[in-house]
Amino acid sequence: MAEQNKKAAAKSIATGGQSYTPGRPVYIRQSACIAGTKESKGPFSGLIDMTAEDDLFGAKTWEEAESTLQKEAVTLALGKAGMQAEEMRYLFAGDLLGQSMASSFGVASFGIPYMGVYGACSTCGETIGLGTMAISGGMAEDVVCVTSSHFASAEKEFRYPLAYGNQRPPSATWTVTGAAAFILTSVASKRNRAEITGVTSGKIVDYGVKDSLNMGVCMAPAACDLIAANLRDFKRKPEDYDKIITGDLGLVGQRALLDLLKEKNIDIEAQHMDCGIEIYDCNTQDVGSGGSGCGCSAVTLSAYILKMLEEGVWKRVLFVPTGALLSKTSFNEGMSVPGVAHGVVLESISS
Amino acid sequence: MAEQNKKAAAKSIATGGQSYTPGRPVYIRQSACIAGTKESKGPFSGLIDMTAEDDLFGAKTWEEAESTLQKEAVTLALGKAGMQAEEMRYLFAGDLLGQSMASSFGVASFGIPYMGVYGACSTCGETIGLGTMAISGGMAEDVVCVTSSHFASAEKEFRYPLAYGNQRPPSATWTVTGAAAFILTSVASKRNRAEITGVTSGKIVDYGVKDSLNMGVCMAPAACDLIAANLRDFKRKPEDYDKIITGDLGLVGQRALLDLLKEKNIDIEAQHMDCGIEIYDCNTQDVGSGGSGCGCSAVTLSAYILKMLEEGVWKRVLFVPTGALLSKTSFNEGMSVPGVAHGVVLESISS
Repeated sequence: MAEQNKKAAAKSIATGGQSYTPGRPVYIRQSACIAGTKESKGPFSGLIDMTAEDDLFGAKTWEEAESTLQKEAVTLALGKAGMQAEEMRYLFAGDLLGQSMASSFGVASFGIPYMGVYGACSTCGETIGLGTMAISGGMAEDVVCVTSSHFASAEKEFRYPLAYGNQRPPSATWTVTGAAAFILTSVASKRNRAEITGVTSGKIVDYGVKDSLNMGVCMAPAACDLIAANLRDFKRKPEDYDKIITGDLGLVGQRALLDLLKEKNIDIEAQHMDCGIEIYDCNTQDVGSGGSGCGCSAVTLSAYILKMLEEGVWKRVLFVPTGALLSKTSFNEGMSVPGVAHGVVLESISS
Repeated sequence: MAEQNKKAAAKSIATGGQSYTPGRPVYIRQSACIAGTKESKGPFSGLIDMTAEDDLFGAKTWEEAESTLQKEAVTLALGKAGMQAEEMRYLFAGDLLGQSMASSFGVASFGIPYMGVYGACSTCGETIGLGTMAISGGMAEDVVCVTSSHFASAEKEFRYPLAYGNQRPPSATWTVTGAAAFILTSVASKRNRAEITGVTSGKIVDYGVKDSLNMGVCMAPAACDLIAANLRDFKRKPEDYDKIITGDLGLVGQRALLDLLKEKNIDIEAQHMDCGIEIYDCNTQDVGSGGSGCGCSAVTLSAYILKMLEEGVWKRVLFVPTGALLSKTSFNEGMSVPGVAHGVVLESISS
């Protein structure tokens, strides 16, 4: 078999630069999202598949609650697609906790070959980019990608115990309690939610910013670099996208991104949208600069962006989850907060 | 371009089960490893590319020292291959620290599109599996995979401050201070170190063991599951491999693995080797059950396994890094320690 497959050498489909176009069609077959009480009262109220009475989701610890989010998101996505876990060739998963524990304990019971991924809040983009690679390369027909964050487990992991009641500057963001799962497939169907027509993988970009309560500004240079690379690699202009959507820059980071891109003579003011700004009502929900966390872009993609593509309101978008690479140890040791971003081009299949 | 590439739909190369055979040849072009003082005095003395006077490697913190290990390993591998960082399409990296900080700070300066991976001590196998996928699928011609661990940063991350001088049971393993980088390529050459002819991706396996000082036994069920899956998927018997090499089960975990496989009527006693047992002299170096950590299997692969394949002593081996999925939080909350393993089939290209 090895010999036979080796002869069928795969056709090279790299576009040059940091991007590739799938060698065969890859679709988001189905998705599902689950979110916390605060998120369910925000602008996406009614678009989120499942919520709970409280943010423990029936668990005993915040970490177990976050694992529950991942498990429920995958279960819901499989159910909506009418598929079984056994049909999934790979599961790509990641979260913000030390050693990605929300993922390990959340997805173990599905028994799907497991690819743990860490890209901080860019993880949703990284998992979808790797899942697309697996299908494009013929290693899989169907894969599932899942990611999560939880306000309380993230505060414990990165900042202070909740009971300490620390104050936050307006530049700080609020970690989204939520998870979303995406089933990718090579099988064409009118019921698929969108087609993935390109992937741009990000480099780590470090402008030396050390303020972990202003992560939008820490991540903006990486988002800028990724968007510029995507436009260059695919020979596109901002107006070739209906929306260019960053993950969780928030109000402060958005300003930094638009300014940085203008220095490169790229103006995306008309197309830019940030999941962190959309997922909460930033005026009334006391979230500072906006939402953040792996769940922020993932929930927004499942609940809102895919809906707009399904309805044909948007034809083509660039989805760019953004991540801030810090740990409490790196922060305590005075290190900077480098950023990374991963881009996915999504196109509507509605005619 | 998207249309053109889409028409050239990639040929499916999944073998069924959990494995795939690359759709075109993938080789380990070059590798390099760097290790600490203890490792350099062990059985691989003379086979390790670089060592240092002390285990801080010129850095101020243990975390920064581990980042230095990754940076030096990649630099050395590129140098030995006569290649530049710009020629690498992706960098797959991971380590054991919270939020994979050794990788983030270790590899940022190379400016290579970055895929962060977390598979605990199985990370070396996961990065090589994903790198092979990228090349097999035509998304890349050359990629670099790097992983590391450091005894002192791991003790701080998972256990006690070094100055506390905690005692260890004989079942405990010693985290390897070391890193190794592997350059994978699609380009055939007599100077390539080995060919990657198969990849088997592991599921999370949890037997409910909670003893973080007996990680060999925590991981043995995952190694057993992976080896059985590999033999099934490729329709092979243990004797089709010259060696079946686990990552860091140690002396105690090895016994568990052999017993678990015998329950499935699989006997690998003649073929089995464990990097954790090989990297130290377990009788004289006071390492308990053996070595562990991402660096354990990675350094052993670069320093020893690839050498044996190059020299044609071994023709085909199954390399199975093993990971224990725990964090200090999951341990403190009384959770079990699930295992995961990732398998790579390596074949000699010497005639």
